[in-house]
Formats: sequence, C-alpha cells, structure tokens
Amino acid sequence: MIAELPGWLPRGPRTLVGIGDDAAVLATPDGRVVATTDFLLEGQHFRRDTSTARDVGHKAAARSLADVAAMGAVPSALLVALAAPADLPVSWVRELAAGLAAECARVPGASVIGGDTARAGCVLLAVTGLGDLAGRAPVLRSGAAPGDVVAVAGPLGHAAAGLALLSAGITEGPLVTAQRRPAPPYDAGPQAADLGATAMIDVSDGLLADLGHIADSSGVLIDLSRAALSPGDPLLAAAHTVAAPRRHVPFDGTGPASTPTPNLTPHPAALDWVLTGGEDHSLAATFPPGVRLPPRWTVIGTVGPGQGIVVDSQPWAHAAGWDHFA
Amino acid sequence: MIAELPGWLPRGPRTLVGIGDDAAVLATPDGRVVATTDFLLEGQHFRRDTSTARDVGHKAAARSLADVAAMGAVPSALLVALAAPADLPVSWVRELAAGLAAECARVPGASVIGGDTARAGCVLLAVTGLGDLAGRAPVLRSGAAPGDVVAVAGPLGHAAAGLALLSAGITEGPLVTAQRRPAPPYDAGPQAADLGATAMIDVSDGLLADLGHIADSSGVLIDLSRAALSPGDPLLAAAHTVAAPRRHVPFDGTGPASTPTPNLTPHPAALDWVLTGGEDHSLAATFPPGVRLPPRWTVIGTVGPGQGIVVDSQPWAHAAGWDHFA
Repeated sequence: MIAELPGWLPRGPRTLVGIGDDAAVLATPDGRVVATTDFLLEGQHFRRDTSTARDVGHKAAARSLADVAAMGAVPSALLVALAAPADLPVSWVRELAAGLAAECARVPGASVIGGDTARAGCVLLAVTGLGDLAGRAPVLRSGAAPGDVVAVAGPLGHAAAGLALLSAGITEGPLVTAQRRPAPPYDAGPQAADLGATAMIDVSDGLLADLGHIADSSGVLIDLSRAALSPGDPLLAAAHTVAAPRRHVPFDGTGPASTPTPNLTPHPAALDWVLTGGEDHSLAATFPPGVRLPPRWTVIGTVGPGQGIVVDSQPWAHAAGWDHFA
Repeated sequence: MIAELPGWLPRGPRTLVGIGDDAAVLATPDGRVVATTDFLLEGQHFRRDTSTARDVGHKAAARSLADVAAMGAVPSALLVALAAPADLPVSWVRELAAGLAAECARVPGASVIGGDTARAGCVLLAVTGLGDLAGRAPVLRSGAAPGDVVAVAGPLGHAAAGLALLSAGITEGPLVTAQRRPAPPYDAGPQAADLGATAMIDVSDGLLADLGHIADSSGVLIDLSRAALSPGDPLLAAAHTVAAPRRHVPFDGTGPASTPTPNLTPHPAALDWVLTGGEDHSLAATFPPGVRLPPRWTVIGTVGPGQGIVVDSQPWAHAAGWDHFA
C-alpha cells in the first residue's frame, strides 16, 4: 500500500523531493513558509458510517489548506500522517488519497508531499499544511483596528446544518455535502491580504468563536449585524426539517431524502448555525474602512474600541422561548 | 493550558509567526524547506508508566528532527499535534513541552512553532519537522553507488536493548535512557552532506531494514562487516542480564537497578539489537570511496553491485541454536 501511495497522489510543481524518503523537500521561493497542523480523528471529526473515505480526504485537506489561506498565503503542500486499524481496506486508503488529491487540486500547485503511517484502533489523521506568502505580509489575528469592517467569504452554518440533517437521518443534499466536504474559498485568503486585510481567520469553530479570537488578539470589539447574517433559504428549510417530528429514515444513504417543509419563516436554529456552526472553513477578515471589496466578500459587521464580540450591539443569546434544535 | 503553551516553548530565531495564529510562519532562507511528519502513539511508541512526559517530548521531537537531519538539513522547527484524554494532568503537558523544547535545544535555532490539540482516549502525538538545507543538495536514499563505503554516526541497538531491559524490569541506566530519550547526532546529517554522502537515512526501524531501504532505492547491494558491528560492553552486559532468569523487580522506577551479570562473552541478542533494533535514530550514510571521515563516523560496510543487504556477504540469519531474547 505504501509503495502505491505516490501513484495515488500526484506530484506538484514545487515538490523537489516527494513521498518515499526520510523527508520531503518543497520549494519556498518566498524565503518563508507558512505551516500548520491539524488532527482529523474518527468519531470526533468524522464517522466512517456517514462519510466516505473520499469525503474524509477532502475534509482533512480542507482543514489545513484553509488555515494556510487564512494567513494570506497560497497553500502549496500537505503532509499526511495516517494511523488505521489493521483491517482497514486498502480501497479505503486509496479513496482517502483520492479525496486528499482532489481537494489539493482546488489550489493550483498544491499536492501531498509526504506523511507517515501507523496502526491504531480507529482512523487518525494529522495533516500538516504548508504555503507560500509570495511576498505578502502574513495576515494575523491581531491586526484588527477600530473603524475596520468585518467581512466573510464563503458559506456560514452550512456544515452545522448538514450535521443536524445527518443526525435527523437526512443523508443527501447540498448541506450534508457541506458537512462531509467543506469547500473553503482558498484563493480568498491571498485576495484578502492583497486588499489590505488587517486580520483574518478561518471559521472552523463558529463565527462568534473565531471572530472572538480576532477580537481578543486585536484588543477590539467586533459588532456583527444580524441583518447581514440572515440565513438563506437552504438553512431555513433545513431548520424546519430538523425541527419537524422525527421521521424514521434509514441511515444507509439509499433512501430518498426527506422533503423539507416549505415554510421558510425565520428560525432560531438557522441563525444559530450561522453564528456558532463551525467546519465550513470560510474566511472571516477585517479590512480598513472604505475598502472596496469584491462581491464574494460580504460585510457582516464593524470593529470598534472595546473587547469581545456582540450582535447588533448585544451579547449573543437566544431570545426567551426559542428552542435550541441544533 | 493552550494559553500557557507559548510560555513553555521558547521561540526560535527563525520563527516569524509562532504559536497562536491560524498557522506559523518560518524563515526558509534557502528557498526550500525540508518537511516530515511522524506519529508517536501511546501504547505503540511509548508507555506512560515507563516514560515520563519529558521523555515523551524528547522522543517525539527526536523522531522528526532526525528525519530532517537525514536529508542533510539543519532542523529548524517542529509543529506538534497533541490529542489527550480529558483527565491528562496539565503538568504532564507542561513536562511534554519541556521535553520537546529541550530536544529542540540540541539543535541551535530549532523551536516548536505551532501545533494542534484535541481529545482522544490515549495520548496521540503527530510531530512535523521542518529544516533548512542551507544550499546543500538533499541527501536521498537513492544515491548509493557500487564502491561507496557505508558508515554510521551514533549508537546502534541501544534503544532496543533499553526496551528489553525495561521488559525485564530494569528501569534505570544508560540503555534504558537511550530507549526513553534517544539522542540522535543531528549535526552529523549536514556534516555527512558536506562530506559528499551519496545516500543517508536515520535508523528508526533497525540498521538492516533502514539500509535495506537505501539498497532498494539505489539498486545496490550493501555488505555489512560483522566485525565492525561488534556490540560494545554495555550491550553485551544487557544481553546477559535479560537472558538471566527473570527476577521480580517492581516496575515503578524507584527500586535499585539490577546489576548486570559481568560476563561479557559475545551474545546473539546483542548483535541482533545492533542489526535490527530501531529507535536510536542514528544516521547511516554511504560515502564515495576514499572519503576521509571524522571519527564520529564508523565505517561498517561497503556498497557493491546487486540488490539487498548482507552481513559478511551472507544473508542475515541467526545461527542454529541461538535463542532470540529481545
């Protein structure tokens, strides 16, 4: 299997030494390398009964590639450490590699350059992402300043809604796919850096939590606009679906997807997903006042003096009587 | 705990962005970065009842730093992903960090620049090592040629002997320390590159296995000299100790270390440790004929035409009647 791995993982243009030696060698023309590492653990970050090996490959790659992009860098390489039970089929590993390679292919030039394999009771992945700043200053969490605007590129709450749908027995649809295979807008990271972003983070733990990191690191207050964060129809439909009395849907992925209730009134679960759902790996950034942002960046708030994060100037809390479905 | 981590892990001179952002940024003045990743899994690579957290930190760092050195590069940074049970004491993590930092300190300029934390049922570490070639060509496994000599820097079989001693209830002594805290000769890696090494590998799986990788990758036959690999007195003493009838020694590290039998006749277990014991992370390399090697490099064999690895021109096998103690 290890001998076959290089064939499953195409080599990128910056790979000077690839899989199969003591270490890989990657070109870092900028003279700096951006580096991050993330676990993806079975049972915690994915389940083998609800995600295919290819899904897991996409997700494992996305987590690290998004972290690199959130620094304003172009991802260039992944190192993938995989521990697995002895009875894991080789086909599962081949599909995992296919998912890793396919997610890398969403970034021109990125590829898997190395890794490690070991035995474990369940599937454990640790993925290191490397990237190149191409002369840009890295965009840190600490640079937001009062007067800046807050904007986001990519979906919010989709992966969380997908997880809720999966828990309700819905195994297909775009939101479920967003949970299984988040598709971060990698090129928005360097784009934000070029637009003068003062701080940036990828939304892995939820918008409030992650922008809270920027607020803490920068020593500022971030005020989000609830109107700008209104959940779209897909999230509203999903919220009504999971709130409906639970139908018994076989959890084997072969049954028809349930039809969402066509009642798209605002729903607290949907807004909750937007504000607290993680795993979309969208990019949230702050920009200087007056910046002209391309359409993919949606302004969702402002930065002011103070500390912490609020929504419409209030600490975020569910209105009384709202149920918490997610 | 995560907030305290940066204080436990001193920042190195090449760290441009350290722990606490989406990713780290490391200077790579050479324009290339050497990168490797390795698991260190509880129960498989270490045990919490026989290794301290500081030992585990040393060992986790050593595995990746040695891989970087084996390319002929100077290690510059580690990224450490740590998954741990919820009840793991903070002091254990602090000691782990101390071990990681202390092992990094064996390489001028190396430091921990980032990582990840997660929950798991046991302690899982995935460590990525990064390094700089400083203009050198990377030393691959594939460059050995007939006529080259084979040499090694660092001990062989010490970690394996230490494991056998631990299994026999001996919990102290230099060989046990070699198992708990291998001390690879990192600077021998760039030194070998400067001396013209044609191939290099770190001895993690055992000398025969690892030099076998060089033989396979290079398409050559490696012939080791048994005389050059004679185990030293510490290994001979350990072999006789573990071969003696098992005494019951409390396995808590507080009892007195057993006194090895002072009978240092050749012993098959000792040679077996030298040839097949891994985890010392010493460096084995091939050099062109006529190279003048510094004393730390011991010539142990030659490279010829053919395929595979032999000892005194014979496939390695235990003589009939030899017991296999390790």
